[in-house]
Amino acid sequence: MIVAPDAERSAVGHAITTLTPLRVKEFKVAGKPAGYAVSGTPADCVKLAVGALLGRRPDLVVSGINLGPNTATNVIYSGTVSAATEARILGVPSIAVSLGTFADPIWPTAASYARRVAATVLRRGLPERVLLNVNVPNLPLRQVKGIAVTRQGVSAYEELYDLRLDPRKVPYYWAAGSYRMSDVDPQSDALALHNGYVSVTPITFDLTAHTVLDEIRRWRFR
Amino acid sequence: MIVAPDAERSAVGHAITTLTPLRVKEFKVAGKPAGYAVSGTPADCVKLAVGALLGRRPDLVVSGINLGPNTATNVIYSGTVSAATEARILGVPSIAVSLGTFADPIWPTAASYARRVAATVLRRGLPERVLLNVNVPNLPLRQVKGIAVTRQGVSAYEELYDLRLDPRKVPYYWAAGSYRMSDVDPQSDALALHNGYVSVTPITFDLTAHTVLDEIRRWRFR
Repeated sequence: MIVAPDAERSAVGHAITTLTPLRVKEFKVAGKPAGYAVSGTPADCVKLAVGALLGRRPDLVVSGINLGPNTATNVIYSGTVSAATEARILGVPSIAVSLGTFADPIWPTAASYARRVAATVLRRGLPERVLLNVNVPNLPLRQVKGIAVTRQGVSAYEELYDLRLDPRKVPYYWAAGSYRMSDVDPQSDALALHNGYVSVTPITFDLTAHTVLDEIRRWRFR
Repeated sequence: MIVAPDAERSAVGHAITTLTPLRVKEFKVAGKPAGYAVSGTPADCVKLAVGALLGRRPDLVVSGINLGPNTATNVIYSGTVSAATEARILGVPSIAVSLGTFADPIWPTAASYARRVAATVLRRGLPERVLLNVNVPNLPLRQVKGIAVTRQGVSAYEELYDLRLDPRKVPYYWAAGSYRMSDVDPQSDALALHNGYVSVTPITFDLTAHTVLDEIRRWRFR
């Protein structure tokens, strides 16, 4: 069953819709009912699917396949990852799948690995509050080097903005920063993908920085 | 210097605006220039402030004070927290401050603790990739029990939706789930706040589930 936004939603992060209603349209593929198009965000789609649209709780939510990688700091902005995260919040095992290109996608490679990772998760289950973020290189299947279990990298976009004038000479800004690949750790998602591996990163929505808790407990706040 | 969305942005998570331009208006407080109103999300405001609007890099970003707590699973949906996270991604120390009420806010209490935590961060710095998520109980200053350094809790909203008919009898859905307080750990943000403490949670944007990496490295994906 497919439940998806009714148009592209880029960089919406984990936005959810509470102040306005959501419209839902059934859609067909090859003449047969295939799913629902929702006037909301990817995370809305999962909440609505589990809360209202599906007759029963799903065994697994697969979010994607997204056109474009969701590695390193981009994971934070990703609607694809957020939809999978929302499923895990609701207690449903989930994976997010993204393809490492913005043009000329080789979908069958990503589909093949999505199926393998999904089957593995269905068989083994997932640790509590953990989901898998999968990024597939845009290569023919035979050229993929294998699966690498990775960490989230540190590469990010630059915070550059163009200042322009509209037709009425009123200024506006437009995000213009480009992606700065700065990962050097071969076990990072960004570099593994770059090197031709399918990157599988276990991620969590527990944002607590557990390793510094003790240090900060010793601080005097004044 | 204040840089803020030009209207309320609730539950936008870490959405950022790349496909459309951003408008910026200077605004005054008591006749003096005080900051900028931006036609974007909280995270946009920080990116734009650091990338274009401010003359120099800020020493600290304070996001908030938000009307309403950002504890437990709500941290994921929070525009307030995402703005602070964006600052930290850009390398600027940051804190997010939220007030534990939706009505009759006692702002001076939150402001007082925001100042204390901000001063402490300016003095001590923050660990790499870590920021502080601060939630202040809506109490007179003297009734606050102190500061508790906490973990992110597990409480969440229920995934309930109302199915309704619009004036033209077309159905629509509206998020109707209520917050289900399920935290029992007194060191969780939600329960500390509930118990009258200022909750300070060190959080990170490294979502890697480090504790399960070794386990998942042993999986055979097939």
